[in-house]
Amino acid sequence: MVKLWQKKSKTDPDPDVETFTAGDDPDLDLRLAAYDCAASAGHARMLGKIGVLQPDEVRRLVDELDAIRRSAEEGRFEIPREMEDCHTAIENRLTEKLGELGKKIHTGRSRNDQVLAALRLFCIAEAGRIRSAAEALTAGLKGLSGRSGGVAIPGYTHTRKAMPSSIGLWAGGYALALEEDARLLEFIRGRMDQSPLGTGAGYGVPLDVDRAYAAKEAGFSAVQENPIAVQLSRGKFESTLVHCLALFMLDANRLATDLIFFSMPDTGFVRLPAAFCTGSSIMPQKKNPDVLELVRAKYHAVLACQIQLQTTTAGLISGYHRDLQLTKKPLMEALDAAADSLAILAKLVSGLEVDEAACAKALTEEVFATERVYALVKQGVPFREAYRRVGKQYE
Amino acid sequence: MVKLWQKKSKTDPDPDVETFTAGDDPDLDLRLAAYDCAASAGHARMLGKIGVLQPDEVRRLVDELDAIRRSAEEGRFEIPREMEDCHTAIENRLTEKLGELGKKIHTGRSRNDQVLAALRLFCIAEAGRIRSAAEALTAGLKGLSGRSGGVAIPGYTHTRKAMPSSIGLWAGGYALALEEDARLLEFIRGRMDQSPLGTGAGYGVPLDVDRAYAAKEAGFSAVQENPIAVQLSRGKFESTLVHCLALFMLDANRLATDLIFFSMPDTGFVRLPAAFCTGSSIMPQKKNPDVLELVRAKYHAVLACQIQLQTTTAGLISGYHRDLQLTKKPLMEALDAAADSLAILAKLVSGLEVDEAACAKALTEEVFATERVYALVKQGVPFREAYRRVGKQYE
Amino acid sequence: MVKLWQKKSKTDPDPDVETFTAGDDPDLDLRLAAYDCAASAGHARMLGKIGVLQPDEVRRLVDELDAIRRSAEEGRFEIPREMEDCHTAIENRLTEKLGELGKKIHTGRSRNDQVLAALRLFCIAEAGRIRSAAEALTAGLKGLSGRSGGVAIPGYTHTRKAMPSSIGLWAGGYALALEEDARLLEFIRGRMDQSPLGTGAGYGVPLDVDRAYAAKEAGFSAVQENPIAVQLSRGKFESTLVHCLALFMLDANRLATDLIFFSMPDTGFVRLPAAFCTGSSIMPQKKNPDVLELVRAKYHAVLACQIQLQTTTAGLISGYHRDLQLTKKPLMEALDAAADSLAILAKLVSGLEVDEAACAKALTEEVFATERVYALVKQGVPFREAYRRVGKQYE
Amino acid sequence: MVKLWQKKSKTDPDPDVETFTAGDDPDLDLRLAAYDCAASAGHARMLGKIGVLQPDEVRRLVDELDAIRRSAEEGRFEIPREMEDCHTAIENRLTEKLGELGKKIHTGRSRNDQVLAALRLFCIAEAGRIRSAAEALTAGLKGLSGRSGGVAIPGYTHTRKAMPSSIGLWAGGYALALEEDARLLEFIRGRMDQSPLGTGAGYGVPLDVDRAYAAKEAGFSAVQENPIAVQLSRGKFESTLVHCLALFMLDANRLATDLIFFSMPDTGFVRLPAAFCTGSSIMPQKKNPDVLELVRAKYHAVLACQIQLQTTTAGLISGYHRDLQLTKKPLMEALDAAADSLAILAKLVSGLEVDEAACAKALTEEVFATERVYALVKQGVPFREAYRRVGKQYE
Repeated sequence: MVKLWQKKSKTDPDPDVETFTAGDDPDLDLRLAAYDCAASAGHARMLGKIGVLQPDEVRRLVDELDAIRRSAEEGRFEIPREMEDCHTAIENRLTEKLGELGKKIHTGRSRNDQVLAALRLFCIAEAGRIRSAAEALTAGLKGLSGRSGGVAIPGYTHTRKAMPSSIGLWAGGYALALEEDARLLEFIRGRMDQSPLGTGAGYGVPLDVDRAYAAKEAGFSAVQENPIAVQLSRGKFESTLVHCLALFMLDANRLATDLIFFSMPDTGFVRLPAAFCTGSSIMPQKKNPDVLELVRAKYHAVLACQIQLQTTTAGLISGYHRDLQLTKKPLMEALDAAADSLAILAKLVSGLEVDEAACAKALTEEVFATERVYALVKQGVPFREAYRRVGKQYE
Repeated sequence: MVKLWQKKSKTDPDPDVETFTAGDDPDLDLRLAAYDCAASAGHARMLGKIGVLQPDEVRRLVDELDAIRRSAEEGRFEIPREMEDCHTAIENRLTEKLGELGKKIHTGRSRNDQVLAALRLFCIAEAGRIRSAAEALTAGLKGLSGRSGGVAIPGYTHTRKAMPSSIGLWAGGYALALEEDARLLEFIRGRMDQSPLGTGAGYGVPLDVDRAYAAKEAGFSAVQENPIAVQLSRGKFESTLVHCLALFMLDANRLATDLIFFSMPDTGFVRLPAAFCTGSSIMPQKKNPDVLELVRAKYHAVLACQIQLQTTTAGLISGYHRDLQLTKKPLMEALDAAADSLAILAKLVSGLEVDEAACAKALTEEVFATERVYALVKQGVPFREAYRRVGKQYE
Repeated sequence: MVKLWQKKSKTDPDPDVETFTAGDDPDLDLRLAAYDCAASAGHARMLGKIGVLQPDEVRRLVDELDAIRRSAEEGRFEIPREMEDCHTAIENRLTEKLGELGKKIHTGRSRNDQVLAALRLFCIAEAGRIRSAAEALTAGLKGLSGRSGGVAIPGYTHTRKAMPSSIGLWAGGYALALEEDARLLEFIRGRMDQSPLGTGAGYGVPLDVDRAYAAKEAGFSAVQENPIAVQLSRGKFESTLVHCLALFMLDANRLATDLIFFSMPDTGFVRLPAAFCTGSSIMPQKKNPDVLELVRAKYHAVLACQIQLQTTTAGLISGYHRDLQLTKKPLMEALDAAADSLAILAKLVSGLEVDEAACAKALTEEVFATERVYALVKQGVPFREAYRRVGKQYE
Repeated sequence: MVKLWQKKSKTDPDPDVETFTAGDDPDLDLRLAAYDCAASAGHARMLGKIGVLQPDEVRRLVDELDAIRRSAEEGRFEIPREMEDCHTAIENRLTEKLGELGKKIHTGRSRNDQVLAALRLFCIAEAGRIRSAAEALTAGLKGLSGRSGGVAIPGYTHTRKAMPSSIGLWAGGYALALEEDARLLEFIRGRMDQSPLGTGAGYGVPLDVDRAYAAKEAGFSAVQENPIAVQLSRGKFESTLVHCLALFMLDANRLATDLIFFSMPDTGFVRLPAAFCTGSSIMPQKKNPDVLELVRAKYHAVLACQIQLQTTTAGLISGYHRDLQLTKKPLMEALDAAADSLAILAKLVSGLEVDEAACAKALTEEVFATERVYALVKQGVPFREAYRRVGKQYE
């Protein structure tokens, strides 16, 4: 078994080096295998079109790639550690099943455009997963508004009561914020929907490939023309996707922070579903908002992923470097953290109960001070004077 | 003189507290003053429309705001340190010039929506400045392509020669990357073009304000409806703008890294304009690429600004907190760093000379190894076998 | 006037380049000038010792450097923008006053070791400023303990009441944390107290300099021997200093967060001094903890500075690069943010009043649930059983 | 089976919640189990000393904990996913084996001090692993110096040749930098060597525990007195440990950057061992320095971990929050990344060969320009004049 980048060599491989360079790829790549199959099938069809492969060869390759893709989707595909990544494992499987034909698939491409094609297709699919989770949370917030939107609560500034707000206004604020994030997600999804196939290792391939055809067959909407721009996008496109996840997660972080505050026994505007709380190993009275705390903390995990993506490629000359291998993990971790957090929040919000009595009790008179100012303004008192008069009682 | 948020109070202010809370605002806000005038004029016209101000009052306020705006644009407006920020300074100036009328401008708004309106108008204008600088750099790259695009150079991967590239391919890669960034900039500019006017301190104002009219008169294209979403956007919208700047700067960082590498005496593909290099205080032979190094480093300054914007608001309950004051500085610093870097790079690239002899010399035979592989492929040798044959000479 | 690194050259300088490369140095370097004078005086005395300068020359140089140092300390020293930094400005002043003798001071050094010597002396002095501010805060916390240490308050976990705590326990926790930070500060101060003088641009100087003597005369306790290690330390030593500031600021951030929470009208354990609060421009009842919010936010400003210091030098080959110029600003900003925050917190804590009635009221019965468990344990009930029994009432 | 924090409750657990809250703990905690056993044994002995447990009970608990520890060290201990973490799994195992006695071990402690004790013992042990890896690298560098230290190479500034350097000077610079890092590691190791046992959930335990005895028996050198300081340290102590790892990794990053540059075919000062290089899937001539590139990139992974640790706890009131669970993963990932990188670099450096001919060829005349200046200086020419004269030839 030979890795794609491996030359016939008299050098014995060093097992520590093999372990170090494989890193987490044998695990992480299980998630990319299906997308590599899709991209490879597109590439094979293109090789057929330009006459490098015979129609029958294309069919056999595509059939076998489909079989691998299904096994990957069903969790049956395995990447032996010594093969390092899904790309080697897939090509070896093709060769094992199809003999010499399997070795022809790599004509007209490099591992670089191959990896990148799989990663982009993966990101496009994952963007859909994030959008669904975000939509579920938005729906949960709107459901809460439907149930209890009219209940008045104090609005806070500086962590002190400010003016009257309501469950509906509050939930609607988060729903709108999430919808704005979703539009950026759609933008970056579109950005990633450009095919790198045919750019080789960053300088094209010395073969008349049909990039537009490969792109279409692999499932891309467009071709990213310049191969150097393709390489410059690595880590960078991902960083914007993860930045977008960080925006969703910032909303989630603040929503969680609000809910931790609103469900304190002393505040009590909302009751968290019991299944989302935990007790203490020492204090028998505790009902702790652990799920919300973890959501809050996961924001920082996503942000760290974004930062790693934004620092890894700085200071490198253009063209591929192995440093890029380390962009996969923060990308996948951020996607999981965001998807899981949005989904669990959606479920929690759906089970949220508003305690109307507690809300009413919290609407102490100072919450209405500004309304009293404006009542005077409507009677003709200048604003600054009205403010001064009402303010007197709080000195 | 009284600050906008200051209550008549028997408490003597503490000068250390005043210094601490003012921070850098008296300086930073000089850049916001003109935008505050524009937003305030829109707000005043709206107050006229709903009958809170008389037409004559509106006219006098707007005229005075215009005068202040002009003085700000011409660098003549000053913010006395004890006034802390431009908003207090402007309202005090209105009151000084127009008496009681000046005090009426704050009817129907809070400092929160006022500050945010000015900041958004500022960001929209600054996005234009960034776009222009980026376009100048793109034009510089295309100009270089025009002059020397056909000159072949080695393309590198892993900081080793890989395959043939060209000045045109290389410059075109950066141009495309910058154009992709510019589309995200346009997206986020559109995102910021939503009026916060009328959302008060985050819970509306108890007055029938006409938000759509105020938005239009202040120069916004749309209204951001939910006041809590408006507050949730603070720091967050800015962080995406600065993320976009970080993308531009990542391109600039890598372009600078390439040029430092390409202009090494040993490589010598390009000659940097002499005015962009410096010598050494001890080594008489040196011609150092200081401008490029500073551009490279400024990427990290912009990234740090982005991170500060993304961490400052996490963990805060919804609603305004004074923490937000500290988002202004990283925003402005990132804008300046990006605009200056793109502009100076544009100038440098325009003066770049390609050394054709050095480029030709660098095209050593191994750069063409892949072409030799594909020559065999075209003769019918399977790719993996062709690769093995050509590879032999490099073992 | 010629900059230290400037070669006699026919190239006209480009004013945009000059502005770009000078950056903020003319302002920032005002703080370094006195330290450059101290280091330069040490260097001059060493040149005397090894016979490069005559005793009389040394005396005149040292006297003039002392005069410049005093003017810098008194805020009278100026750095003309065209001179870019304090090092050029100081050498030009020496030459202006002492003629040819002024030009001799640069013998046996490079700008690199010169700048670094000044920066290290600056950091050593600034570490003292930070230590004092931290000690003032620790003293304030201990003073609070002395006044009200015995007052019981609820201790919280998960933002819910957990078990009984006290003002003394709470204040003592922060005091201990700050003292632990101070020990790291002392460690890093010691790390920086190594002289770079004599390492030139990173490869020594071709002259028999006496590094130990220069170090001693410049005020360093030790010599950092390897010149490449000296260059590798740039940005890195600073990053650890700023990391230490970030630790202080994390304590400050959490102390501020506690005080914002403990001074909410609903909680009310402590009353903030009125001079440290602000009102609202629209809500007449507000007393906002702005100072605490700004301290909280400044943590993130310091953290951003740390990150910038940690990212700027990564990926650079060993040896000096101009990128390092941009490490000065985050270093200085972090020092100021930390010193100012610790000082203002010290003042605020000294004025803090504990509301004993509010504290007592907050000690609701569930705070004592764990004590009831252990009362059963002491009667012989196994812990898990006792926990179960007491827990029943909270189901 | 009941988790430690779980109350008897009629609420059915939600499997999504269970999955979300367990997170990566069942995997990560396999590394903590042995340390939990050590700390628990110390705690058990202390309970014996204060009479809560009988001597026979202590012995049986300690024996069983030892058995679990051994199984953990041998990789045989398992944490069923439904038990969530090692602490629950260990206590359940004790109860399974020892019946009611197993339930007594949790007397006088909380999960908080239990987890923290295990984490600190883990960190202390891991610091040893890092120190060893760093020492191996330092030894490798010194070995290289021994072999080829006298070979002259050009020293670079600004990525351009500057002055003569040597393999020995260069390797010695990194060795010194690593030794300086190691001293900080020792400092932070000492900082972590303070026992949290007996601080419960952050407010002590209502039982007369003997903290000093528990500390000694668990293997700590000291007791961290204030329980609130103990909680404030969480994430924070770890962040300084990881900051120290980031310093090691910055050296590794720059060492790798140097070696990538020095082993370019055009430079060729050193030859990388063949086992540490890889080829290309498309270009048969390539020998790529992948290991060095991955080391370079891992710096950014470690930095991201540090940042996550530094942001997660900001803005939280004092006392435990579940957010802290997410500090384990970045801590462990950073430790592994640093240990692995230092170890592989040590191995690579040991196999490095210096190409003396290539080094000699690179010492072109301009490298000696400064020496020519100083030759003139020694003849009595003032430095600035000598510089000017030598500089002429480079204009």
